Amino acid sequence: MSDIEIARAAKKKPIQEIGEKLGIPWEHLLPFGHDKAKVSEDFIKSLSDRKDGHLVLVTAINPTPAGEGKTTTTVGLGDGLNAIGKTAAVCIREASLGPCFGMKGGAAGGGYAQVVPMEDMNLHFTGDFHAITSAHNLLAAMLDNHIYWGNEQQVDIRRIAYRRVMDMNDRALRQIVCNLGGVANGFPREAGFDITVASEVMAILCLATDLADLERRLGDIIVAYRRDKTPVFCRDIKADGAMTVLLQQAMQPNLVQTLENNPAFVHGGPFANIAHGCNSVVATTTALKLADYVVTEAGFGADLGAEKFMDIKCRKAGLNPEAVVIVATVRAMKMNGGVAKADLGAENVEAVKAGCENLGRHIDNVKKFGVPAVVAINHFVTDTDAEVKAVQEYVATQGTEAVLCKHWAEGSKGTEDLANKVVEIVESGKASYKPLYPDEMPLFEKIETIAKEIYHADEVVADSKVRAQLKEWEDQGYGNLPVCMAKTQYSFTTDPSRRGAPTGHSLPVREVRLSAGAGFVVVVCGEIMTMPGLPKVPSAESICINDDGLIDGLF
Amino acid sequence: MSDIEIARAAKKKPIQEIGEKLGIPWEHLLPFGHDKAKVSEDFIKSLSDRKDGHLVLVTAINPTPAGEGKTTTTVGLGDGLNAIGKTAAVCIREASLGPCFGMKGGAAGGGYAQVVPMEDMNLHFTGDFHAITSAHNLLAAMLDNHIYWGNEQQVDIRRIAYRRVMDMNDRALRQIVCNLGGVANGFPREAGFDITVASEVMAILCLATDLADLERRLGDIIVAYRRDKTPVFCRDIKADGAMTVLLQQAMQPNLVQTLENNPAFVHGGPFANIAHGCNSVVATTTALKLADYVVTEAGFGADLGAEKFMDIKCRKAGLNPEAVVIVATVRAMKMNGGVAKADLGAENVEAVKAGCENLGRHIDNVKKFGVPAVVAINHFVTDTDAEVKAVQEYVATQGTEAVLCKHWAEGSKGTEDLANKVVEIVESGKASYKPLYPDEMPLFEKIETIAKEIYHADEVVADSKVRAQLKEWEDQGYGNLPVCMAKTQYSFTTDPSRRGAPTGHSLPVREVRLSAGAGFVVVVCGEIMTMPGLPKVPSAESICINDDGLIDGLF
Repeated sequence: MSDIEIARAAKKKPIQEIGEKLGIPWEHLLPFGHDKAKVSEDFIKSLSDRKDGHLVLVTAINPTPAGEGKTTTTVGLGDGLNAIGKTAAVCIREASLGPCFGMKGGAAGGGYAQVVPMEDMNLHFTGDFHAITSAHNLLAAMLDNHIYWGNEQQVDIRRIAYRRVMDMNDRALRQIVCNLGGVANGFPREAGFDITVASEVMAILCLATDLADLERRLGDIIVAYRRDKTPVFCRDIKADGAMTVLLQQAMQPNLVQTLENNPAFVHGGPFANIAHGCNSVVATTTALKLADYVVTEAGFGADLGAEKFMDIKCRKAGLNPEAVVIVATVRAMKMNGGVAKADLGAENVEAVKAGCENLGRHIDNVKKFGVPAVVAINHFVTDTDAEVKAVQEYVATQGTEAVLCKHWAEGSKGTEDLANKVVEIVESGKASYKPLYPDEMPLFEKIETIAKEIYHADEVVADSKVRAQLKEWEDQGYGNLPVCMAKTQYSFTTDPSRRGAPTGHSLPVREVRLSAGAGFVVVVCGEIMTMPGLPKVPSAESICINDDGLIDGLF
Repeated sequence: MSDIEIARAAKKKPIQEIGEKLGIPWEHLLPFGHDKAKVSEDFIKSLSDRKDGHLVLVTAINPTPAGEGKTTTTVGLGDGLNAIGKTAAVCIREASLGPCFGMKGGAAGGGYAQVVPMEDMNLHFTGDFHAITSAHNLLAAMLDNHIYWGNEQQVDIRRIAYRRVMDMNDRALRQIVCNLGGVANGFPREAGFDITVASEVMAILCLATDLADLERRLGDIIVAYRRDKTPVFCRDIKADGAMTVLLQQAMQPNLVQTLENNPAFVHGGPFANIAHGCNSVVATTTALKLADYVVTEAGFGADLGAEKFMDIKCRKAGLNPEAVVIVATVRAMKMNGGVAKADLGAENVEAVKAGCENLGRHIDNVKKFGVPAVVAINHFVTDTDAEVKAVQEYVATQGTEAVLCKHWAEGSKGTEDLANKVVEIVESGKASYKPLYPDEMPLFEKIETIAKEIYHADEVVADSKVRAQLKEWEDQGYGNLPVCMAKTQYSFTTDPSRRGAPTGHSLPVREVRLSAGAGFVVVVCGEIMTMPGLPKVPSAESICINDDGLIDGLF
């Protein structure tokens, strides 16, 4: 059966029953249909005295076209932990609507390790992203309106740092001139749209600990600069209160279920390049109060995803991860070992061995955060025993273990070994989480630390303008912020074609951006796309409601 | 108590109980929180063999700054009908998010005649407008994408008829140049954004009878023209299926409740100028299957609202209205009689009498649709008995009755007389609905018929380009469509300052637009604004969550 057939055959339980598993009373679940609900703010507040469960991060090697199955493994491990008698919840990100109409539906796992309802999760879900779009664009409208009615804040319209957003792949809006058409329509200026997941409001929603923190962070957004180069904040435009009102409901985490009727929190979805790529802090901290084990994931490979999870999300939210699962596949190892996608079907133990160095470096990197790692081999039908064994033998030389997982085909039965291994790690008490660099380290040194420790680059290359900008932000009091790397996910370097574990490269920093509300400095290394386009034949062309009333083409 | 205090003090019942009143089983109500729900498509389909209840339209005189209370009276009459023992449901429109951040929150009634939850109704509600925004903009993105990847349909980028939308008051987006920034971003062209309620997709959702009809109408949208001037349809861009998927949930009507726990359907909200200004056909037809009486309203005064309700919505949906309530206030009569807003507090019977001619013309007009009318005087505390009597005496000379209503202060007790009168009219069987003009009348004659019969204009003025365009559409097979007038709501003429019942004016037609999917020809008479701006001090500046966790500033 295909993923979609499996999802459609799911025997979903009413969402109240899923909430009951975690002890959430009916009146504190705001239902969205019969299979989705938000957990009320009041209930979340009532949990503050409880002790936290154990936090487990699922990350991966650098992604290859072969696919790794990070979300699938996250879901599978959650089900596996429940199967061995733990109360476990999964925390993953919401999917962006726009890209679903381009290439394919967003990920909610696969095979027998999925979160449902799949269609909703790839469409409007509980409306969080729409709320973020609205809140973001309200500020943009209020900013232009402020300029229109006299510009009391003396915004320099050449230095507006805040774009608009839409949850759509729409290249036509990347770069526009707005306020055209004469006096009644304002002062013409250059502008543009990003996709909603790239919004700083998205990052803020995902890092805020509660509504008050949300409002404060929204107020801190820098929307523009004056001619004297001083920043104009969102709160100078007086949009922070109304934005908070628009986001009040969206701040409440969404509860859904896995195919095995275990709880899954699906909440928030910041880009993993210009933002930190993790689900919301509120969802993770709430889940930790309700479950013994919380399994979460972070965007892209461990070089980007795990690093940001540790250095941004855990640091800022005071989280204490106790185990890291690094997902790898035999096929991806082969691609790292130089095999082309078309040849992945044939056994090639030597290529697997050669490709393992990518995995090895991620294992080594994760240790730098003080958290023990285990490798999950996400099994694919064409994998041979010899290939699997090659990965396992390699991982053993790296001081850890690679557990074969068959959750795609078998659900929780396929991850019981991994679940037991994770419990063993957690109960060993060996974890001692620490971020890679201290808050007080200068911004440029933070970049250098990540480049050298995680990417294994020799040096960071940045022109004097970038260095001066970082210095200026330090002078303004932003020096304590973590940095958020925006780099290709396909390589440790900035060259997406360099697989494996390259050394001797340098990290060129093209540009730096201050996300003062989210609370990080974005370090742009190479091209980053904040508004995708649609392909020549978008999947939207074949999406429709079929004769049985089911949605076709979304997956 | 203020409207908001009354709304906050509401004793809401769980939405399932409200559904039970109408016989909707629990499993067919898709809850959104505990106080809102969508009625399932399957349940609606199951009702097709039932007989319809009675449909009552609430309309009004031309709006004045004094306010008339059309929605308030709609809600009050619904409660009044329930109070006298009928099963009655109210059908009103959803509020647009954008304007709430400009001047004030949208209307959900007032005083003791309100629909709740008020905050939700002025914010994201059940996400319908966000779905419409997404569906609309998906087509826009696919159109530019089509051009980008080779323009097989040979779209003339100077003749694109489809703009983008946002549910926001944002004048900066009225007129833009998009696709800037070089080869990767497409072909630069002029474009712009309307507010979501002005989207043709909104009008389509509100006129479609089911999902299949929705998809067909979406496919019929004309998005552009080729160099040979032939139209390019949405279905040529292959967006209709995916748009339908995005709108599937939004097509299901929303059920909420009045302060007196009676059912209210709140669904759809097309602009009352460039669209027809009525709640959805699906909500109205569903309510008619479930209730003895359905009370609905239409946008603006009766010259625009009632005319479009009769000539567009009822004609196309096969509805059979049996009574019309025309809402008037003593204050509005005074303003029509020449009194300034500041002087409304003082008794002025002569001005009331003088202003009644506006009301009289609406009474006369409504009769032309074959439906008996009654006047509801929406009572205001400063109204004197003599003023009320003046209105009642005037209305008696027009062959009908004016019933004093005190629902704002007293809820259903204040509308029992009106409810009894409405039942009397309906049970008299005197109604014999007919549209003002037949389908087969030429388009220009349709405009002339409305201008003369409803506006009492002497002539329609239109240049040869407009007439030629109408002729061309007739040749293309669009001649059978109704016309949708876009005119100021403040006057029977196109001059908003001409109150009362002017004669001897002409109706200038500036432009005509074909909404081929919605199924009408928009006739633009004077300026119409499809993207509002924010005022100097937008209400958003004072909207916030207060210390008690309640939303301030939204109303």
